[in-house]
Amino acid sequence: MKWDNQLIDHLQWSNTIINREGKEIVAREIAAMATDGDVIGAGSGSTVYLTLFALAERIRRESLSIEVIPASKEISMACIQLGIPQTTLWAKRPDWTFDGADEVDPNRSLIKGRGGAMFKEKLLIKSSSKSFIIVDNSKLVEQLGSRFPIPVEVFPGALNLVESEMQRLGASEIVLRLAGGKDGPVLTENGNFIFDTRFSYIDPSLEQNLKAITGVIESGLFIGYGVEVIVAR
Amino acid sequence: MKWDNQLIDHLQWSNTIINREGKEIVAREIAAMATDGDVIGAGSGSTVYLTLFALAERIRRESLSIEVIPASKEISMACIQLGIPQTTLWAKRPDWTFDGADEVDPNRSLIKGRGGAMFKEKLLIKSSSKSFIIVDNSKLVEQLGSRFPIPVEVFPGALNLVESEMQRLGASEIVLRLAGGKDGPVLTENGNFIFDTRFSYIDPSLEQNLKAITGVIESGLFIGYGVEVIVAR
Repeated sequence: MKWDNQLIDHLQWSNTIINREGKEIVAREIAAMATDGDVIGAGSGSTVYLTLFALAERIRRESLSIEVIPASKEISMACIQLGIPQTTLWAKRPDWTFDGADEVDPNRSLIKGRGGAMFKEKLLIKSSSKSFIIVDNSKLVEQLGSRFPIPVEVFPGALNLVESEMQRLGASEIVLRLAGGKDGPVLTENGNFIFDTRFSYIDPSLEQNLKAITGVIESGLFIGYGVEVIVAR
Repeated sequence: MKWDNQLIDHLQWSNTIINREGKEIVAREIAAMATDGDVIGAGSGSTVYLTLFALAERIRRESLSIEVIPASKEISMACIQLGIPQTTLWAKRPDWTFDGADEVDPNRSLIKGRGGAMFKEKLLIKSSSKSFIIVDNSKLVEQLGSRFPIPVEVFPGALNLVESEMQRLGASEIVLRLAGGKDGPVLTENGNFIFDTRFSYIDPSLEQNLKAITGVIESGLFIGYGVEVIVAR
């Protein structure tokens, strides 16, 4: 298939991953935690790719029976490419999940969604009793929102309502994410748009207040999920 | 177009509308409220159809410039059939909205969604400064949930998580809505499923608690929306 070759190119892009050695060490540590029979949720990001490589190697060498639930079609394609069996959240609940993040604060709260997959990533993390978030030092912040906006997945017909409701919540910036070039707004796998938003404050209620808006599918705020954060050195 | 004829059949089904005379009186009252230049949200249900008939007549006779924002493709088809100009929530906010309901309690809180369009109906009502809910006596209840379950639109991949989170909220019944025959689960216009749910209690927090669940798109609970209820005699 054509995208098979494209994917190889994409995976080779992983040669330009920042701090690759540090991330590979963590990727192998995560892959080492898998035990026979595990169902594992896989988020997105460069370390997730590296972990899938390491996992595929263990599956091959040790004939492990492991299934992955991917957070996106891109990760699903990587699993096909690497020969990793897949299942879905319909069929099974993950025993554990691993994922990346764009920002991690001292309470292990997160901003995610630069890749636009935060809805399914949140489904995986909420469905798992244990989740590992792999980041490097550059993702650690004192205050969420220091560097990245909060992505919010929005039903297209609700753009106007959601924009005005977010302004009421104190949004200081609301930007419709564009795909660049002539490709128009970014569409999520669920056919929705993404607002990248900045707020003057980020407190525990903001995640619920955003989700409460009719037309908001999910946000990239993950506050108080009790994840385990692993920092690649 | 083929669906044009099918729609005529469907609209003729309106000859079997219960309490048709009473509803037609209200339909004409609602249509009479339209003023030139109005943008009007239209929900679903038999009285919405009757109101669209009356509205189309006024538009024709008085050459009114009116646009309708339909809550569903079915209502959009009716507008095309009746020659009523349409617009969208992307382009405009409705000046007012009219809709039906499955249950109305003494505080004018509602259960909606037997037709599966509660997500877009809620978007319309929340986007309007004024909404009229047209029902007959049979829809008035002392306690929401007396007759109808609460419909909840759910992202298909989240069925398992949403089911267990709703059980935690005290759901006593959670039924996936089926289309009947060989048509499998009902799919909403947004590609999602519907759980018809019963709870031992329905209080103001339940609507927010349901929406807060990752994977819940919207529910058919409309608590405290300040709608005006018009009862067809």
